[in-house]
Amino acid sequence: MAEKKLVEQITPMDTDFAAWYTDVVKKAELIDYSSVKGCVILRPYAYSIWENIQSIADRLFKETGHENVYLPLLIPESLLQKEKDHVKGFAPEVAWVTHGGSEKLQERLCVRPTSETLFCEHYAHIIQSWRDLPKLYNQWCSVMRWEKTTRPFLRGREFLWQEGHTIHATAEEAMEETLRMLDIYSDIAENYLAMPVIKGQKTESEKFAGAVATYGIECMMHDGKALQSGTTHYFGDGFAKAFEIQFTDRDNTLKHPFQTSWGITTRLIGGIIMTHGDDSGLVLPPRVAPVQVAVVPIAQHKPGVSEKAAEVTAALKAAGVRARLDLSDQSPGWKFAEYEMKGVPLRLELGPRDIEGGKCVLAARTGGKEEVSLDGIAARVSEKLEDIQKELFERASANLKSKTSTARTLDEMINIAASRGGFIKTMWCGSEECEEKVKEVTGGMKSRCIPFEQEKIGETCAVCGKSANTMLYWGFQY
Amino acid sequence: MAEKKLVEQITPMDTDFAAWYTDVVKKAELIDYSSVKGCVILRPYAYSIWENIQSIADRLFKETGHENVYLPLLIPESLLQKEKDHVKGFAPEVAWVTHGGSEKLQERLCVRPTSETLFCEHYAHIIQSWRDLPKLYNQWCSVMRWEKTTRPFLRGREFLWQEGHTIHATAEEAMEETLRMLDIYSDIAENYLAMPVIKGQKTESEKFAGAVATYGIECMMHDGKALQSGTTHYFGDGFAKAFEIQFTDRDNTLKHPFQTSWGITTRLIGGIIMTHGDDSGLVLPPRVAPVQVAVVPIAQHKPGVSEKAAEVTAALKAAGVRARLDLSDQSPGWKFAEYEMKGVPLRLELGPRDIEGGKCVLAARTGGKEEVSLDGIAARVSEKLEDIQKELFERASANLKSKTSTARTLDEMINIAASRGGFIKTMWCGSEECEEKVKEVTGGMKSRCIPFEQEKIGETCAVCGKSANTMLYWGFQY
Repeated sequence: MAEKKLVEQITPMDTDFAAWYTDVVKKAELIDYSSVKGCVILRPYAYSIWENIQSIADRLFKETGHENVYLPLLIPESLLQKEKDHVKGFAPEVAWVTHGGSEKLQERLCVRPTSETLFCEHYAHIIQSWRDLPKLYNQWCSVMRWEKTTRPFLRGREFLWQEGHTIHATAEEAMEETLRMLDIYSDIAENYLAMPVIKGQKTESEKFAGAVATYGIECMMHDGKALQSGTTHYFGDGFAKAFEIQFTDRDNTLKHPFQTSWGITTRLIGGIIMTHGDDSGLVLPPRVAPVQVAVVPIAQHKPGVSEKAAEVTAALKAAGVRARLDLSDQSPGWKFAEYEMKGVPLRLELGPRDIEGGKCVLAARTGGKEEVSLDGIAARVSEKLEDIQKELFERASANLKSKTSTARTLDEMINIAASRGGFIKTMWCGSEECEEKVKEVTGGMKSRCIPFEQEKIGETCAVCGKSANTMLYWGFQY
Repeated sequence: MAEKKLVEQITPMDTDFAAWYTDVVKKAELIDYSSVKGCVILRPYAYSIWENIQSIADRLFKETGHENVYLPLLIPESLLQKEKDHVKGFAPEVAWVTHGGSEKLQERLCVRPTSETLFCEHYAHIIQSWRDLPKLYNQWCSVMRWEKTTRPFLRGREFLWQEGHTIHATAEEAMEETLRMLDIYSDIAENYLAMPVIKGQKTESEKFAGAVATYGIECMMHDGKALQSGTTHYFGDGFAKAFEIQFTDRDNTLKHPFQTSWGITTRLIGGIIMTHGDDSGLVLPPRVAPVQVAVVPIAQHKPGVSEKAAEVTAALKAAGVRARLDLSDQSPGWKFAEYEMKGVPLRLELGPRDIEGGKCVLAARTGGKEEVSLDGIAARVSEKLEDIQKELFERASANLKSKTSTARTLDEMINIAASRGGFIKTMWCGSEECEEKVKEVTGGMKSRCIPFEQEKIGETCAVCGKSANTMLYWGFQY
C-alpha cells in the first residue's frame, strides 16, 4: 500500500516525460527550488552523486598529470572582450555585477560563464620559456549563464562543473590533449555512469565560441533526445595571440603556445536520471550511487534482528561497500518504496527466519530477488553490484541502438524525427545550409557530431543530394 | 650561490613583515594577482594545500554526521533583508548583480557573502516534523565580500571556505553542535596545521551578525598579531522565526527549531605561512604539505643514480608518503633552494657515494641533516615527518606562550601593545565601553575572546577598574 502510494506520485514516463523527470528530481530528494529562478539547490543525495563523479574524474585528471587551481569568480568586461568570437558567444548570457557595497563600479564585472579569459591572463603572467610548458590546469567551480528556460541539472543559470584549461608548446601536443580528455570523458560516462556514448567532432556551426575544433560525447535518453555530456576544445593559438601569451622556445625564438579546454557538469546527473530511471523513480549505477545497498530489517523489534542487520552492514562497509542500515520506525514496505524511488541499486532484507537459516534476501533495483547465504555476504554483494552496473550499461546500449536510425533522404529524416526521434545517421555534404534546413523542417533537430566511427551509408548528402563523404549524427537535444 | 640568490629575493621578516609575507606568497608560487582587485588566483601549490585541508575537514564533518549540499551563488535582496541584524552586518559589503544578459533585473541579487538566508529558505521548505530534524548540512564554495583593503589569503573580496548550517529540535542540541564544531576546528588547527589555538567565546560586540553567541579559535602569528582561524555560531531560534521555519514536535505542537553555522576558510593558509614561515620562505606542516619529501639526486647523470632515486621515490609513495622526484636539469643547489622556499618538510639527497654505501641524506626544513640507511627508508621518512609535525607545533606553542602577556591596568596594556603586541590577558568587567576604550588608546587592539580556560588574574577590570569576574584575551588582528 505504502509502496503503491509513493509510486503513484510519479507521472509515468510515457504519459509525460518532462513531468516524470520533474517528479523524480523532487521525490528522490535530489533538488529543491530556490527563490532565484534557474538556480536550484543540490540536496545531499544529488550532491553526493556529484562528489562520486568528482572523485572519479579528479583521480583520472591527476593520473594524467593535471593540477587543480582556483581562479576568480568575476571577469572584467574588458577582459571578456579580448577574444572576439568568445565574447560574441558569451556576452548575451552573462550576469553583470555593477555595484560593490554602495558604490557603482567603474567597470562592469561578469560572473564567469567559463574561464578561458582568466586562464589566458594568468598564463600570460606565468609563461616565459619552454620550461614553463605545458601547464595542465583544472578548476572545480560553479559557472553562471543567464538562460531563458531552465531545467534542473540539464540547463541552469548556475551549475557546477570542472573546466580544464591547458597550454602547450606545440599544436600536436594540444590536439593530443584535446582527444585524451575526450577519451577520459567517455571512460567516465561508459564505465562509471553506465551511459554509452557516441564520440565525435562538432560541426563548425556547433563548436564552442573561440575554438578551432570542438569534440563531444553524445548520449541517448529514454525519450529519444540526445544529451551532450562532455566537450573538449582545441583552440590553436587564437587565444594566445589575443592575450599576448608568448614563450621562448628551445631554439631561442618567441612563439605563441597552443591551448585546450574541456568540461563536464552536473548535467551528467540529469543524464543518469534519463538514461536509467523508470516509473518507480531513480535507478543509480552502483559506481556512483551514494548508497549502494540499503539494509532493511524485517520485524526489527524481534530479538537479535537489528543487531544482526548492524553486523551485516558493518561487514559490507568494511569491504568498501556504501551500505546504509535503516532502523527507522517506518514499515518495511515504506522503506522498500523509498529506496526504490531513490534508485538504490541493491536492497538487503533480513528477518528472523532469514537469520535462523543464515541467509538474507537481495533485491536488485533492476529486478530480481535471490536468497543468499550470510557467509561471505560482502563478496556476493560486491559481485551483484558489478552485475547491476553491467546490466545498466547493456540496457542503455540496447536503448541507444534501438533509437538509432539511418536515413538517406530529407523525407526519411522528417519522418523519423516526427515518429520516434533518437539519433539519425546520414551522409552529409559538410554545409551549414543543410544543417539549417534540417533544423527548420524538423522543428529543431540539430547535428550532434561527426562520429569518429564513420560508416559509408551512401554517396550523397541526405539533405541536398550533393556528393558527400562524411557521416553525421542528428538528433533533438537537451 | 643559487641558494643565496633565491633567498635574497625575500625581504627578511624583521625588516618588513608585510613585505616578507607578500614575497613568500609570490615566490613560493602560491598565488598570482588577477585583474579584479582583491581576487587572487590560487596556483596549484596553494590549491593543493587547500585540498589537503578540505579532505581532513570533510572527513571529520562526515564522521560527525554532516552531509554536503550546494546552494545558489546569488541571494535576492529581499531574502537577505529578512533577518535585520544579519542584513545590517552584510549589506554594506556585498557585490550586486543588476543585469542578466542585456536585461535589467527586477530585483537586485547579491553574490553570497554567507548563506544563512538561503539555508533558512530551504529549511522552511523541507522541515515539517521532528522526523526531519536535525539537518546537519555543509557547503564547500566561494563567497564574496567587497572589502576595501585586501591581502592574499587573509582578507579577500572572494575566498574559498566551507559553511556548515545545522538545524535542531532543541536549543541544547544546537549549542552542543556549536561547541562540537569548535572542537573539530581546534583539532584541525592543532593536529594538522600545527597551529596552537586559544578557544573561547567572542564578546557581544565581536559576534557574528544575527548570532546569539559566536565562538572562535584564535592563533598567534610570528609578528605578534592574532588570526581568527575559525568561528562557530549559535543562532537560537532567531533565524527560524524570521524565516518562519516550524516543525510539529512529538507532542504535536508547532515549534521553531534552533540553528548554528560555522566556517573555516583559505585564510588558514595565511595562518600556516605566518605561523611557520621563516626568512628562507614557506615551512609546511607535513600533514598538509602537497609534497612531503623532495627527492633530489646528486650527479644524476652518473650511471644508476636517477634509477635508484626513482626506486626510492616509488617506495616512499607506496608507503603513502607524498614524495616528488626532481630529475629536471637544474643544479642540486637550485633545487635545494626551490624546495626550501616552497617549505617542503623533508629533502632526500642521493648521490653515487650514498648509493654505494646503501645510504642517503635526509635534510629537514626545520633544520638538521642526517645520514640514514636506504633499508626501511619509508618507515624512517614517515617517522621523521611526524617529528617535524610535532616540532612545528612545539615551536608555535612556544611562540604563542612568549607572545602572551598579562596586564592589570590600562597603562600596562598600552605599553605591551606598543612594545611587543601579542595576546594580552586581562580581567574585564564585561562592558562594550571598555572594549571601545582599548581600541581607541592602543590604535586598534580588540578583544579576541573570553577563553574557555579562565584564570583569575585579578579582581578588577584592567580598563575601568570596576569589579570583574571574566578574563579576556586582547590583541591586534588580521
